[in-house]
Amino acid sequence: MAKVTIIGAGLMGSAMAWPLSDRGHEVHLVGTHLDRATIQSCLERRWHPRLRKAIPEDVRPHFLEELDQVLQGSELILSGVNSLGIHWMAGVLADRVRPGQIVLGITKGLEVGPGGDVLILPEVLRAGIPLALRTSVDFAAIGGPCIAGELSARRQTCVMVGAEGKGTAERLAELLGTDYYHPVPTSDLLGLEVGVALKNAYTLAVGMAYGLLEKSGGPDDAGNSMHNLAAALFAQGCWEIRRILALVGASEAYAAGLPGAGDLYVTSMGGRTVRLGRLLGSGKSYAEARAIMVGETLEAAEIVTAMSRILPTWIGQGRVNRGDLPLLEALVEVVAGGKALDLPLGLFFG
Amino acid sequence: MAKVTIIGAGLMGSAMAWPLSDRGHEVHLVGTHLDRATIQSCLERRWHPRLRKAIPEDVRPHFLEELDQVLQGSELILSGVNSLGIHWMAGVLADRVRPGQIVLGITKGLEVGPGGDVLILPEVLRAGIPLALRTSVDFAAIGGPCIAGELSARRQTCVMVGAEGKGTAERLAELLGTDYYHPVPTSDLLGLEVGVALKNAYTLAVGMAYGLLEKSGGPDDAGNSMHNLAAALFAQGCWEIRRILALVGASEAYAAGLPGAGDLYVTSMGGRTVRLGRLLGSGKSYAEARAIMVGETLEAAEIVTAMSRILPTWIGQGRVNRGDLPLLEALVEVVAGGKALDLPLGLFFG
Repeated sequence: MAKVTIIGAGLMGSAMAWPLSDRGHEVHLVGTHLDRATIQSCLERRWHPRLRKAIPEDVRPHFLEELDQVLQGSELILSGVNSLGIHWMAGVLADRVRPGQIVLGITKGLEVGPGGDVLILPEVLRAGIPLALRTSVDFAAIGGPCIAGELSARRQTCVMVGAEGKGTAERLAELLGTDYYHPVPTSDLLGLEVGVALKNAYTLAVGMAYGLLEKSGGPDDAGNSMHNLAAALFAQGCWEIRRILALVGASEAYAAGLPGAGDLYVTSMGGRTVRLGRLLGSGKSYAEARAIMVGETLEAAEIVTAMSRILPTWIGQGRVNRGDLPLLEALVEVVAGGKALDLPLGLFFG
Repeated sequence: MAKVTIIGAGLMGSAMAWPLSDRGHEVHLVGTHLDRATIQSCLERRWHPRLRKAIPEDVRPHFLEELDQVLQGSELILSGVNSLGIHWMAGVLADRVRPGQIVLGITKGLEVGPGGDVLILPEVLRAGIPLALRTSVDFAAIGGPCIAGELSARRQTCVMVGAEGKGTAERLAELLGTDYYHPVPTSDLLGLEVGVALKNAYTLAVGMAYGLLEKSGGPDDAGNSMHNLAAALFAQGCWEIRRILALVGASEAYAAGLPGAGDLYVTSMGGRTVRLGRLLGSGKSYAEARAIMVGETLEAAEIVTAMSRILPTWIGQGRVNRGDLPLLEALVEVVAGGKALDLPLGLFFG
């Protein structure tokens, strides 16, 4: 059994306490400065207000001030912040990680690297720590279809856990797996991270179909929705994820697996990404939609914005041509370009 | 502009009259013996009772007795029956097709061929006609995410149209395409047909997740559903479709395209396949579920039953090992074996 420290008591970071605790580990849940009310509630009433559940008996909640002490002897550090917190996390970890520790990220996102290419978040975290430690600390990630609330309800869940070394990935799968949480190990960390980030972007498109339905007046007299269009966008999303995975040298098979189709499905079942897509589909500009959803973390928009800068790099390098990823290009136009939505269905599946 | 005859006035056959008519073709809708009330209504009131829509002005409805006359000069014959009607259709076409005609199937299904291998429905139709005609008549198919009602409401829809010759597929895309109906041509007819058939089987699995939710008492106090499990089953479905497409020599990329992920999405949004899956997930045996859904065409069950006979052939030929397709094997156990549901999540994505 291992000592595990979760940093960040948001939905997903906290939910990971359930399988880790059920697996018998010593689990410490450390809130960030944004999580003080959550930690207070966990300490006083053993109640997680956002997950609306009592936390497992042996999970130990902590305010951020206790982090240094808690990290000592932790085999596994789980980075539980969202993409807006990832640089804060890099700073927190910088002078605290020790050789042999594994940093496991749950954040979905993508950044633009120095050369204009894609930079996955485990690399962002790695880049923050002292050079001497970069090879002795593993930066891994979990991805795949997992709604945090369902995990805390111990619902059956399959995810992928990726690390650069197969051994680390397998060790993590061993550390995390329970009879309801099934982590599949992979050494294709890049494919996993690119897949789960992009699926957020393409979920916007699925949401757009239902926004277009609203704009057209809703279901017709015979009750017809716009599932055909949503499905076309869903499939084109998987299709483009496959293309991009191949382009970055990752396993294109994942487009038809947990990081692609599976995670796209679960994200399309509801939540803020679909809501943003609906607003855009219903005719709002990105600025208008953003204003309506003020205060919410819109990772999908961040990812599309990053892709608006990465795509020109790839095109410039001749790795992809303009028009090869028509749906992503359409999303870029809307989110980063502020343009009106124009779905080029005739170019799909080319 | 072409003369087109649709045989079968069910939901999907009839819905095809909309894009064909909008494209300017001379469209004849011929009911089978099961469609007499529908044709009567179309003739008397221009009203399609199942689609709950007025049929396009220039579509000409006919009773089956007029088929011979209508078929004369038809460039395109659309086979609009479901999988239970496919042998009836083969008999109807046997002495009626003429060289140069294209028979376009919309039926989703699979049969077991003479050698125990998979037989796609265009081949079933082809096998029914005189030897001399088998090379001069094209047997093509449409597949992909298309709810008939939405098509008749002229909702945006992307599908694939497959034929053995690229030229025929492209001709069909040209004949069928409108500003709301986007057929993507392919010469991988086998991949298209296997993909769209299998997605029906895997939709059962997605439905099972929600049946298991019902069995467990429904959403918990925090409102948690079972989308994580549904997504895992969705992804494993795509994953196995990919494996099977590779196994039969078809394009495995389609698992992440319209015939795989896209069609699986739209089918999972509701309808009788999901309903059957829910019943099985909630603890009913296949026989019990079948009895509850008496009178409904359960193509998914037919496809799983066909696969229960095809899988042993493939295993015997060493093309796949037992355990390589754990979800399909689980579906076979339930539907063809009458066993209780047991989802081997720990074997997924292996």
